[in-house]
Amino acid sequence: MKKVILASTSPRRKELMSLLNVPFVIDAKEVDESFDACLSPAEVVQFLAEKKAKIIAETNPDAIVIGSDTVVVFKNEIIGKPTSTENAIEILEKLSGETHQVYTGVAILNGEVSEVFYEATDVKFFDLTQEEIEWYVATNEPLDKAGAYGIQGYGSTLVEKINGDYFTIVGLPVAKLKRKLKDFL
Amino acid sequence: MKKVILASTSPRRKELMSLLNVPFVIDAKEVDESFDACLSPAEVVQFLAEKKAKIIAETNPDAIVIGSDTVVVFKNEIIGKPTSTENAIEILEKLSGETHQVYTGVAILNGEVSEVFYEATDVKFFDLTQEEIEWYVATNEPLDKAGAYGIQGYGSTLVEKINGDYFTIVGLPVAKLKRKLKDFL
Repeated sequence: MKKVILASTSPRRKELMSLLNVPFVIDAKEVDESFDACLSPAEVVQFLAEKKAKIIAETNPDAIVIGSDTVVVFKNEIIGKPTSTENAIEILEKLSGETHQVYTGVAILNGEVSEVFYEATDVKFFDLTQEEIEWYVATNEPLDKAGAYGIQGYGSTLVEKINGDYFTIVGLPVAKLKRKLKDFL
Repeated sequence: MKKVILASTSPRRKELMSLLNVPFVIDAKEVDESFDACLSPAEVVQFLAEKKAKIIAETNPDAIVIGSDTVVVFKNEIIGKPTSTENAIEILEKLSGETHQVYTGVAILNGEVSEVFYEATDVKFFDLTQEEIEWYVATNEPLDKAGAYGIQGYGSTLVEKINGDYFTIVGLPVAKLKRKLKDFL
């Protein structure tokens, strides 16, 4: 069986990857995450997923390397990780009562063979009170997360409904990845 | 602050309940889960949620008691937990490639005051191969779960998309519960 490498240090992605029941190891390097402003959200997450996988594939030519990237998109604008507590509050105020999209791109590389895809899921937030936003930011959960929330944690209480794949929001579309990965194993 | 009791022994519900950031204890008793065949799925889950909460509330009149019940519904038929490995395979064959609904009812009781509600979420399964169904059943995950799958485990790889609240599928609509519980605390 080929060696499978997850090119991500995210504990959430590691946990989701384990749902595939395929042995894997973690090996990730920091990459420059800047991108061309002309790219669409779907292009951005696929570009960055491939970039994260490529840098690991260079020194692991025989392995199957999986890279992934997630962004939150509101009214066609990409919302990154908050830069401060104040910024997290601003982002959550913006998303309150509205529907945004979460895009996750995945790249699977194995030598000359590659497959890059993405999934997008709609997320509708409840109308959030100022008290609720401040309570949530005080949990410290938003600070390292795109869009300033984590749906798998206390952020679950902010979300009214979703339409699409849940695990795309957490950071790895496991069901689609399993299907694509089958051809590589 | 009033004592909050979760009337469920499900480890999944306990984990979801902890997302509310409200201190609680577990106290549950087995109840007869039979119901009138004329009831709709929404009525069934609310009836059973209330029954599970009531039996605990009897001996805890001052506490806020939360009961919950989840069923899987396919073409208006309630699908329970599988009775055997063969039955789990049959259920998954039935759900393959189709959309079903997951209903979760919640009852909040506190003395004379009560609130009972439900949430329903659509779940679309991928077309599953026989090999995939047998692999999944061999994980033993389906056997204690309504509809023969758990979306938070290996079952995540069977699901193409959902429409509604994700946590309703896992077994407790935490976001709506948080909002309703606020009035009791």
